[in-house]
Amino acid sequence: MGISEPEHQTDHYFTDEERDAVYKSIYSRRDVRGQFKPDPVPDDVLARIIKAAHHAPSVGFMQPWNFLLIKNPQVKQSVHDIFLKANDEASDMFEPEESAIYKKLKLEGILESPINLVVTCDRERSGPVVLGRTHDKSMDLFSSVCAVQNLWLAARAEGVGVGWVSIFNKKALKQALKLPKSVTPVAYLCIGYVEHFFVEPELKSAGWRKRLPVEDLICFDEWDNVDQEGNEGLFQALSKLP
Amino acid sequence: MGISEPEHQTDHYFTDEERDAVYKSIYSRRDVRGQFKPDPVPDDVLARIIKAAHHAPSVGFMQPWNFLLIKNPQVKQSVHDIFLKANDEASDMFEPEESAIYKKLKLEGILESPINLVVTCDRERSGPVVLGRTHDKSMDLFSSVCAVQNLWLAARAEGVGVGWVSIFNKKALKQALKLPKSVTPVAYLCIGYVEHFFVEPELKSAGWRKRLPVEDLICFDEWDNVDQEGNEGLFQALSKLP
Repeated sequence: MGISEPEHQTDHYFTDEERDAVYKSIYSRRDVRGQFKPDPVPDDVLARIIKAAHHAPSVGFMQPWNFLLIKNPQVKQSVHDIFLKANDEASDMFEPEESAIYKKLKLEGILESPINLVVTCDRERSGPVVLGRTHDKSMDLFSSVCAVQNLWLAARAEGVGVGWVSIFNKKALKQALKLPKSVTPVAYLCIGYVEHFFVEPELKSAGWRKRLPVEDLICFDEWDNVDQEGNEGLFQALSKLP
Repeated sequence: MGISEPEHQTDHYFTDEERDAVYKSIYSRRDVRGQFKPDPVPDDVLARIIKAAHHAPSVGFMQPWNFLLIKNPQVKQSVHDIFLKANDEASDMFEPEESAIYKKLKLEGILESPINLVVTCDRERSGPVVLGRTHDKSMDLFSSVCAVQNLWLAARAEGVGVGWVSIFNKKALKQALKLPKSVTPVAYLCIGYVEHFFVEPELKSAGWRKRLPVEDLICFDEWDNVDQEGNEGLFQALSKLP
């Protein structure tokens, strides 16, 4: 600490083209459920998206994640069975009209996608006290989620689709994957090349929910203060975005 | 549902330059604590990074986030006080040698950064049953974390630094920001232009923790199977990455 100043990045600025490419990945990323092609994802592509995940921020530099790659059809089938059971339970939780729509939605591509990848969180990786996690025990899980989002954007830039499946009994999933007690499956991802990416999120197209106007989600200094006075410039800038 | 096929993206592929720009944002993103410049972030830049956050994936298209922008020095001061108290508590949790190092680390830029931004999660936004959240109640929090990571990468592409501060008593923070009961502060972010970005994460440079070799974090089909046989290509590809 403090002996010598650590090295600075020499490439501080992004060109407009580089910046736009980052936004392109953010806006064109979709949660893919049904358009997977069976084509294998080459090792170099898979290596790049896994390493992108590994370079996510993590609380206390804890790097609590592992990457469990699943290609074995039997393991996928077990996981799919666990999904089907949970999905049946889930559809019963909605009101009849919603439930009928729910049952028609395609929500996962476990069997069709060539790769399933589980991003986990080892909750004991750095011992009992972790810098930055002392007052929020969820920060390690959140770190693993940052890894997922890195992976998702990297995959989109590679033309590879990713879908996050969250409808599982967690205990059953842990058992199927033989995860130890301290390890939580944070995200079960279906990964592969796709026929196409949709322009809009599928739940939006299906009329399940609308996109909220971002302007309605901004407040100032305190929760109740949504007064735009003094912040007109921000709202004007938002309204001009495509 | 199913009346007409939703529109496909016509811009399926990224050029190599676009792909590399996405990786540039992933690898050059840093958690910034101490290099903030007081220069204001222009409204158009702020609008772009907030909208990038809003286009994160969310469970059931729930969009559980709000964006609380804090510029008021009094509010920042209250939050800083809450940080100081928690940070004192935190430093006492480590063994003496670690605690001494901990106390020297700069862990936040609440007062120096021109903008503080809290990404929250409204846990009741979509009513009691949310598609995809039926079996994992944390999925809404995870959605807000995806929004944070989108914002972080977008900010880096804009040349703007972001630091995530997690050392707070959450109840005190909620009170200071007047958050309602159902709203959780997921990430307290310090945002602003910076003198420089470091090449390496600060905790790595400080010797706090090492980067783990990504090869050690990969397993196949089941947790215990770390056998590289049949997957040599992936490990070769990983070893060739810069």
